[in-house]
Amino acid sequence: VWPDLGDPADIDYALVWMPEPGVLANLPALKAIFNLGAGVDHLLADPSLPKVPLARTVDPDMAMRMSEYVVFHVLLHHRQHLLYAAQQRRQQWQGHPQPAASEVRVGVMGLGSLGADAARKLSLLGFATAGWSRSEKSLAGIDCFHGTDGLKPFLNRTDILVVLLPATDRTKGIIDARLLSSLAQDGVLGGPVLINAGRGALQVEADIEAALDSGTLKAASLDVFEEEPLPPSSPLWHHPNVVVTPHNAADSGALPLCRGILEQIRTFESSGILRHLVDRQRGY
Amino acid sequence: VWPDLGDPADIDYALVWMPEPGVLANLPALKAIFNLGAGVDHLLADPSLPKVPLARTVDPDMAMRMSEYVVFHVLLHHRQHLLYAAQQRRQQWQGHPQPAASEVRVGVMGLGSLGADAARKLSLLGFATAGWSRSEKSLAGIDCFHGTDGLKPFLNRTDILVVLLPATDRTKGIIDARLLSSLAQDGVLGGPVLINAGRGALQVEADIEAALDSGTLKAASLDVFEEEPLPPSSPLWHHPNVVVTPHNAADSGALPLCRGILEQIRTFESSGILRHLVDRQRGY
Repeated sequence: VWPDLGDPADIDYALVWMPEPGVLANLPALKAIFNLGAGVDHLLADPSLPKVPLARTVDPDMAMRMSEYVVFHVLLHHRQHLLYAAQQRRQQWQGHPQPAASEVRVGVMGLGSLGADAARKLSLLGFATAGWSRSEKSLAGIDCFHGTDGLKPFLNRTDILVVLLPATDRTKGIIDARLLSSLAQDGVLGGPVLINAGRGALQVEADIEAALDSGTLKAASLDVFEEEPLPPSSPLWHHPNVVVTPHNAADSGALPLCRGILEQIRTFESSGILRHLVDRQRGY
Repeated sequence: VWPDLGDPADIDYALVWMPEPGVLANLPALKAIFNLGAGVDHLLADPSLPKVPLARTVDPDMAMRMSEYVVFHVLLHHRQHLLYAAQQRRQQWQGHPQPAASEVRVGVMGLGSLGADAARKLSLLGFATAGWSRSEKSLAGIDCFHGTDGLKPFLNRTDILVVLLPATDRTKGIIDARLLSSLAQDGVLGGPVLINAGRGALQVEADIEAALDSGTLKAASLDVFEEEPLPPSSPLWHHPNVVVTPHNAADSGALPLCRGILEQIRTFESSGILRHLVDRQRGY
C-alpha cells in the first residue's frame, strides 16, 4: 500500500483513488491501472499518467449504493420530506396532497452502469422515468434521449433531474442557469428538483443558488461540490430546500471492489481483454 | 356523497372511510360495503354494521404509495439521514462507514398485498428481507416466517422492523417492550429501527419511548399513533431519532380507487363473486 511500495519494478497493476500526480509514472513495469471509483477525471488531469490501459470500476456494490442514494433522494423530494420534517419540528399534524409516482417525471442524465441501474429502480417504483446520454442507448421501460438535440426535450419533461455524468471537458459546468431553466415548470411537485451525485465540476453553484432563490428550482440534493469539503461560507449549507451530503453517495471502499478487479486481471493475463476501459480522448 | 344521500332505499353499494357509526344501518337496500382503505378496524367497531359483504381495498395505487413510504423510511435509517441532516445544520462535512444493503436485515410484519409489495421492493434494493404473517405465506426471494412460533426467530434476525399489520383483537399492542427487546441488537446499524405504517393501536407508545431512551431501539419512523392527531404533549415529536408523519403513508384518496371498485361491483353483479372480502371473525 502506497507509499510503502517496495521495488517499483515489481508492480504490474495499480489500484488507485486520486493518487498524487507523478506516483504512477514511477512504476516502470506497470501493465494497467484500475481506478477505485467511477470517475477518472482526477487521474486524467495528471499529465504524467502512464500510457497503459486504464479501467474504471464497474461494480455491483457501487451501483447498489448509488441507486440507494438516488432512490432515497428522489423519494425524499417526491414525498415532501423537508416539509413534513419542518412540520414535525413545530409539532404540526397536517397532510398535504401527494401526487402518485406515475405523475412525477424523473430524468437521469448519464446512462452508464450507475445511471442505468438507478433508472431501472426508479421505474420499478412507478416513476415516469427517462434518461439522457451522449450516445444513443436503449433501456427497457426508460424513455431514452441522447445527444445535443435530445437534451432540451429531455429537460423540458423532467420534474426531478438526477445527474450521474462523468466530469469531462464537455460536461464541465453543464448544470448552469440555462439547464435549470429548461426543466419542467408545470409539474405536480410545484417546481423542479436537482439531484447531483456525479461530480462537483458539473455544476455552477452560483447558478443553482440563484435558481433556488428565484423559484426556478424548488429543491436540491447535492453530494458533490465545486470545492470539497463544501466551504462554511456556502449558502447551500443552510438553504431550507437543499440537502447536503459529504460526497458519500456510493462509497464502496477498496476492499469490496477487489474481487471484481482480481477477476479483471485474471482475464487480462489469460486473454489480453480488459473491460471497462477508459477512452482518454472522450474522458470517461 | 354523505350526508346528502337522497332516498336511502336507492343505495346498493356504499364506499366508506370511517363513517359515523349507525349511518350504514340506515341503508335498507345495501348489497355490499367497500372500505376506502386497507384497515377495517374502525368499521368493525360499529355494532350496527349491516351483515352484507364487506370488502377492503386492494389497489395498485395504494400499494405503490405504501411501498414508497416503506422504502423511503428504510433508506432514511439505512443511509443515516438523521445523522447527516444534523451534521448539515452545523455545517459539518464528515462521512461515516456505510454498511451495504445486503448486510441490513429488514423484516416486514404483515404480508398482505401491501406488505408483500414492500418486501419485494426492499429485496430488489438489496436488503436481506424477511416477512412474518399469521398464516403461512411464500414469497420469492423473501425469507417467510409465520405464526406464534415464527415470531421470535423473525424478530431476532431483524435490524429494521416494518409493521404493516391490521388492527385486530390479536394484534392490539403487539409492538410492546417484549417485541422491541427481541429485535437484533448485534446488527450493522448499531441498534434496531421500527417503522410502523400499519395502525396506531398496534403500538404501546410508552414502551417505544422507553426503548428509545434506553437504546434498545435506535430509531423509529411512525405514521400512526394511539391517538391521532398525535397530542402536542407526546415526546415522540421531539425525539432526535424519531420521524413523525401525519398518517399519510398511503393516502390514495377515494377517486383513484373508484375504477377498481366499479370493476368489483360489475363482477359481483354478474357472477356474485366479491374479492378481498373481510373475514369479520378474523378482523381483516
